[in-house]
Amino acid sequence: MANWFSRNRGRIEVPKLRSRSDEAATTKVDLHEFSPPLLEFLGRAAYVQLSLFENLGRAVSTAPTMEAKASLGRVAELSIARHRELAAEITKAGGKVADAMQPYRAGVDEFERVTRGGDWYETVVACYITAGFLDDFFARLSVGLASEPAKRIAAIYARESGESLLAEQLTVAISEHPRLESRLAMWGRRLVGDTMLVAGSALHFTENHKSDAARVEPVFTELIAAHTRRMDALGLTA
Amino acid sequence: MANWFSRNRGRIEVPKLRSRSDEAATTKVDLHEFSPPLLEFLGRAAYVQLSLFENLGRAVSTAPTMEAKASLGRVAELSIARHRELAAEITKAGGKVADAMQPYRAGVDEFERVTRGGDWYETVVACYITAGFLDDFFARLSVGLASEPAKRIAAIYARESGESLLAEQLTVAISEHPRLESRLAMWGRRLVGDTMLVAGSALHFTENHKSDAARVEPVFTELIAAHTRRMDALGLTA
Repeated sequence: MANWFSRNRGRIEVPKLRSRSDEAATTKVDLHEFSPPLLEFLGRAAYVQLSLFENLGRAVSTAPTMEAKASLGRVAELSIARHRELAAEITKAGGKVADAMQPYRAGVDEFERVTRGGDWYETVVACYITAGFLDDFFARLSVGLASEPAKRIAAIYARESGESLLAEQLTVAISEHPRLESRLAMWGRRLVGDTMLVAGSALHFTENHKSDAARVEPVFTELIAAHTRRMDALGLTA
Repeated sequence: MANWFSRNRGRIEVPKLRSRSDEAATTKVDLHEFSPPLLEFLGRAAYVQLSLFENLGRAVSTAPTMEAKASLGRVAELSIARHRELAAEITKAGGKVADAMQPYRAGVDEFERVTRGGDWYETVVACYITAGFLDDFFARLSVGLASEPAKRIAAIYARESGESLLAEQLTVAISEHPRLESRLAMWGRRLVGDTMLVAGSALHFTENHKSDAARVEPVFTELIAAHTRRMDALGLTA
């Protein structure tokens, strides 16, 4: 497998994507062995969520139509509500929200910068692709936390995220401007790479990197299969 | 009184501000005589609210500290929730959200452009001053609508807006950078002018402009007194 969760490399390589029929045969796996301590998990997840919200705010501001503006406003609300719920878990765990998020600021801000997109279409694809992947990732990583907070965190990630509203806006936009297709397909591939980097940096590995890698691989394979389905839903090649 | 609600002028003149003791003596007045039709009220109010939210999103993105980011995120959530509630009223009244907001887009976008501010401090003062004034204004204007929606709309504007969180962030910022004071005081005066323009354009006048002006005047006097208290709370001269 490609070594895409090592921390010591620049650009990651996206592994060969699996088809939908392969995916159906896999068992749903999680990342419980690699969960960080609770406050580390929450600080990172809460700040990632705030950064996803910031990108949505930008998408609302630059929306070309009133329909898009109104619809993205709803997604932005769901996104910032999820941030607030994660922040509340930090407080519950005895942490201070700002302090818990601080260590992840530089990394996540850089992620936010490279996934911002050059225009409204790229921004909305980024909101759709990165949030979809990271929600899925953090939900699986949360399984390894203490059972009480883990249950509440699973519930937070299980709530409506507005993904279908984003897909709807994008489907309309692509059908109206078919020339966007190849550009947005390429942008989607770049996004999944940057998103996997952010996800990978949240994993707590043991000393035995090689065996960890083997155990993490099936999870990322599933996450990428889900990404492929998200691109499929827009009619774009992953 | 200054003719600051006429639609046919450029820059408005801010009337002489009244002191707090004057204000305490006035009766609370509303604008029921000048309420527009329900869908017009809601379309404008919903789009103004979306634009206030956009400015908050910008304030979250550019916040200098994690504390500020986290706190403004909460205010942004309250703001977009209020937009969603106003949008739901449009649907309830038989309108389409995007269509109802469309007529106000150009005017409100221009308002948003001039109140955006040149840096984070100005943006947050704008969020605080313009939302405070306009919430107050729309609440009073809603009194003239049909009683069922009017009741629900009053409830929407009565809910927590996060104003105190904004004041808190600004008080901290000003105490840490006292040289901001004069610039932000001047910015606040400019903001109230632009905000009154947007408010004034929502009033439905009769043929008798002179008599309307006389009846509207006490309401704007109260709105400006409230603005003065908001500036006072920051230690800034209105």
